[in-house]
Amino acid sequence: MTNPPAPPAIPTLPAIAAYLAAGGSPVALAEAALDRIAAWDDPALFIAPLPREAVLARARQLAAEGPRGRPLYGVPFVVKDNIDLAGLPTTAACPEYAYTPAEDAPAVARLLAAGAIPLGKANLDQFATGLNGTRSPYGTPRNALDPALIPGGSSSGSATAVGAGIAAFSLGTDTAGSGRVPAMLNNIVGLKPSLGLVPTRGVVPACRSLDCVSVFALTVADAAAVLAVIAGPDPADRYARPAPAGWSPLPGARPPVTRLAIPETDQLAFDTPADAALFAAALARAEALGARIARVDLAPFLALARRLYEGAWVAERTAALRGFLETRPDAVHPVTRGILEAGFRGRTVDAFDDFHAAAEARRLARDLFAAHDLLLVPTAPGAPTLADLAAEPIAANSRLGTYTNFVNIADLSGLAIPAGFRPDGRPFGVTLLAPAFAEARLGALGAALHAALDAAAPAGTPPPGLGAMAGAVPAPPAPPPLRADETALFCIGAHMAGLPLNPQVTALGGRFLAEARTAPCYRLYDLGARPGLLRVAPRDRPGDDAVAGRRQAGAAIAGELWALPTAAIGALLAQVPAPLGFGRVALAEGEALGFLCEAAGIEGAPDITATGGWRAYLTEKEPA
Amino acid sequence: MTNPPAPPAIPTLPAIAAYLAAGGSPVALAEAALDRIAAWDDPALFIAPLPREAVLARARQLAAEGPRGRPLYGVPFVVKDNIDLAGLPTTAACPEYAYTPAEDAPAVARLLAAGAIPLGKANLDQFATGLNGTRSPYGTPRNALDPALIPGGSSSGSATAVGAGIAAFSLGTDTAGSGRVPAMLNNIVGLKPSLGLVPTRGVVPACRSLDCVSVFALTVADAAAVLAVIAGPDPADRYARPAPAGWSPLPGARPPVTRLAIPETDQLAFDTPADAALFAAALARAEALGARIARVDLAPFLALARRLYEGAWVAERTAALRGFLETRPDAVHPVTRGILEAGFRGRTVDAFDDFHAAAEARRLARDLFAAHDLLLVPTAPGAPTLADLAAEPIAANSRLGTYTNFVNIADLSGLAIPAGFRPDGRPFGVTLLAPAFAEARLGALGAALHAALDAAAPAGTPPPGLGAMAGAVPAPPAPPPLRADETALFCIGAHMAGLPLNPQVTALGGRFLAEARTAPCYRLYDLGARPGLLRVAPRDRPGDDAVAGRRQAGAAIAGELWALPTAAIGALLAQVPAPLGFGRVALAEGEALGFLCEAAGIEGAPDITATGGWRAYLTEKEPA
Repeated sequence: MTNPPAPPAIPTLPAIAAYLAAGGSPVALAEAALDRIAAWDDPALFIAPLPREAVLARARQLAAEGPRGRPLYGVPFVVKDNIDLAGLPTTAACPEYAYTPAEDAPAVARLLAAGAIPLGKANLDQFATGLNGTRSPYGTPRNALDPALIPGGSSSGSATAVGAGIAAFSLGTDTAGSGRVPAMLNNIVGLKPSLGLVPTRGVVPACRSLDCVSVFALTVADAAAVLAVIAGPDPADRYARPAPAGWSPLPGARPPVTRLAIPETDQLAFDTPADAALFAAALARAEALGARIARVDLAPFLALARRLYEGAWVAERTAALRGFLETRPDAVHPVTRGILEAGFRGRTVDAFDDFHAAAEARRLARDLFAAHDLLLVPTAPGAPTLADLAAEPIAANSRLGTYTNFVNIADLSGLAIPAGFRPDGRPFGVTLLAPAFAEARLGALGAALHAALDAAAPAGTPPPGLGAMAGAVPAPPAPPPLRADETALFCIGAHMAGLPLNPQVTALGGRFLAEARTAPCYRLYDLGARPGLLRVAPRDRPGDDAVAGRRQAGAAIAGELWALPTAAIGALLAQVPAPLGFGRVALAEGEALGFLCEAAGIEGAPDITATGGWRAYLTEKEPA
Repeated sequence: MTNPPAPPAIPTLPAIAAYLAAGGSPVALAEAALDRIAAWDDPALFIAPLPREAVLARARQLAAEGPRGRPLYGVPFVVKDNIDLAGLPTTAACPEYAYTPAEDAPAVARLLAAGAIPLGKANLDQFATGLNGTRSPYGTPRNALDPALIPGGSSSGSATAVGAGIAAFSLGTDTAGSGRVPAMLNNIVGLKPSLGLVPTRGVVPACRSLDCVSVFALTVADAAAVLAVIAGPDPADRYARPAPAGWSPLPGARPPVTRLAIPETDQLAFDTPADAALFAAALARAEALGARIARVDLAPFLALARRLYEGAWVAERTAALRGFLETRPDAVHPVTRGILEAGFRGRTVDAFDDFHAAAEARRLARDLFAAHDLLLVPTAPGAPTLADLAAEPIAANSRLGTYTNFVNIADLSGLAIPAGFRPDGRPFGVTLLAPAFAEARLGALGAALHAALDAAAPAGTPPPGLGAMAGAVPAPPAPPPLRADETALFCIGAHMAGLPLNPQVTALGGRFLAEARTAPCYRLYDLGARPGLLRVAPRDRPGDDAVAGRRQAGAAIAGELWALPTAAIGALLAQVPAPLGFGRVALAEGEALGFLCEAAGIEGAPDITATGGWRAYLTEKEPA
């Protein structure tokens, strides 16, 4: 018997999957996470860690059950303590506010159903109000890179847990940037989904209309995989929104050549020239990946960012907590209390200035994203120290939100990724922004940009903490080739690459995906300029030709899978004459939409099945 | 030379088109409208009628140019005086507020480009605040049916102008019901489009985030035709929203079998038992048209309705006019001023209760319209007199909004149609409600219900005014033929009207075109929940069964042609499992894209060709 493998030091999802495939166990994964928690030794990271025995019991139960196809089987994760995990108190970092929920928040319930292992409830800026991580009576979680730096907030413990390699991923929340700023501070990935995509039921509200559950992870692909699990409708959540048909967070195979907007030069604020240089380097990486950069005027968005903590939305926070604020003001962190009590003062007649500005920003965002695929901004102007924050608790926090505060109000999705380190070792990050429900677009460029950063970083450059791991983070795995708005079409004749009707496909935005073969249950006929593909046996009985004596044996036919915009399928089909049409074609693996032929249409047509496919047949027919 | 025809007494769009086709002229149409204005002799209808000579000059210019394909060529219309018509003052019924715009509002500009002839700016409840029509310093427009009744508001003049037969249609606005309540009061059609569908630029704001430009007309088809002209994006309007691909306001040829929700009995408020009886009669007409009625709990919506004039949205009105209210409070109608000044008092922290309630209502509406196609409500509990309003200026007005106030907050579209007359001659109306951008669904049942009312009304029943015309309003015209961006799809199974998969078609913007049959060369099989259509003979030899001895004779199979946006074909096809697909189906006349079945997929399936079609087969199978 060989020794079992060791759990991965860098717990990405592919590393965990490989470990489990090699005979590893959820119990060892849980033990490794618990050991890391002990070694990391930060009493301020968790508000309530789960007891070691509870974590191990869950892991043992999972091990006993086996994976059962669960996508996050055995994966340790951490939950921000403003999200309900049944049976543990939800404090929102205010002990006097705490309640113990009987039910998991839907996001947590979906992770548990997917086989993930919770480690505990992580610290946060109280009531998720703040971007720095220091506003908690439970202390300030230690930054994963440098104890002198703030951890970022409000999802402070969630981000440092991932940055320190404790958990493969964590749940944060994001109203003003709480899912992005801490990602930069800890050199990890922060994915802030579209408003309403992940239910916010079971989350202590900050601004109900703007709150999102967010994901921290080591790679873009991991963040997308977690989002795929937690996204989905919740009939009981008034702010839930149905994703468009075919929505997926998983990026396509390669970044499309991207029209990438960036702020005007004078709208770029950096703490130091070194931060500016790191932003410029990120742009250069994007350009090297084929992005075409254009500067856009972000002034209305930056102005909107300032409204978030100065305008009506402060009152939305206050409204969510008003009973508590009115009865227990003493129980609230003094900085937080100062912010929230201001929310009692505003008049509705003034609030509509903010709401109309928000509507205007959404309009401008529509214009912006009609002309550009993505918007790239600094995640924050720079990474402040704890001392910086102590000196200016409000102003330094506000500065952190320069490029994050407007995002939820403008109904955008966002992805924060690492962007390297200043010479003094402080991390920098960039954030890609896209319209709502365009998470796949964020991921396509984001994964490539992150991978390019790792490729560019000289070994040994990153400081300790997860920084030490960054260079070793594997490139994102080859993701599914199809985008959410595309349909795979199996072509078997003149629509294949280089053949006469291929321009019909490319003119409609089709792109080649892969060569493929049908399941062995088809025959192919020469109808003249095009082949006809006819199924001759049910899929479940591909070899059962005896059932109908007259039926010939089926064969596997070669063809090509092309990705077409789903909206273009009708236009292509309009150019397809009888006896051809589109239906489901059984492939060697899976099935796809493809060209089929009516049985009545093959009469008298030569059977060319033996050639194996139209391209081979053409070669045989015209050997020149 | 024959005498020119006379302009139609009832100026519907088809009547005007027929008149013009018979040699009529826009000049005579304009003269007829001007004559009607003179004969109607209501000094309170217009705030600013266009001078006779200006109207005739426009008509003469149109006559000189000819129609040039313009859909509203020569059609007289009226504009509510809170919508900009370049060169005329926009007063919003407050003379001290007036300004003279240099540009037309987009809705007006589109009507002018479509060849319509403006007659003037119509009176309204000041600042579009009110549902009764009596809150204007320019007087109260005379109800088109009965001078003792209120005209309804806020679009009072717009509605009475159409009700009196002066204009073929008019523009109103609708924030709380101003496009629906006056329709009922004047026995005409009021179409309140989806939020953001028609630009509200160039409209004096009431609640910017809830305002809609609406259409009054004599028939549902006319209202839809006008909406088709004025709907469309406006890059400069922050509250404009792009309609889904393939959106059209034009209803299909006949109402699909409709799942029709109505309020619980105790949520139905009527002024008199006669109003209740008219609502019951409307329900009976809907049932006779095939609608299946179900009662739903509207309590949350009715509660929301009360918030519109008691909660945050009053402050939105106040915010839009605050500069004016602060400097010229004396210039505001006393009732209006009382309402608007209350808007200064609310606190933002309280306003979020309203906004969260609105979000909850939108969530509930999604649930409601997942289970029901349309919601039918009374347009108002009854038609009050001027004396009723004078006695209770606020309460009687609020009561008018019982079934209208919640609609825009809940993001619904609405269509008010006449529903007959009480024995005392007062009109009653019903309103169909649907989700945003489902105007075609409203129109399908709305047109049929209106036509059924006319068919049911004994001649001579309606009182004077347009009521006299109602019985003569023609049935809606045939549906428009296939548009360039649509594809005709021949459905033979569960996708047909009223069958389980029809929502797949309608959700993608499909509309019914016609019943049709295949050429006699197909056989039909029962695959379980769906039929499979298989061609058994080449089209050019439909009767040639001898060619292959085993082949059965083909038959003509009944189905339905539906128009789908071509861009939606791929999305529909993605929902079609093997062995079904789309190909060219030979019809009795011509061919169309349609559902076909692979020959390999019918093995063992019952041959149901003899029934002639799936619908007949279903009837035979379950004769109950």
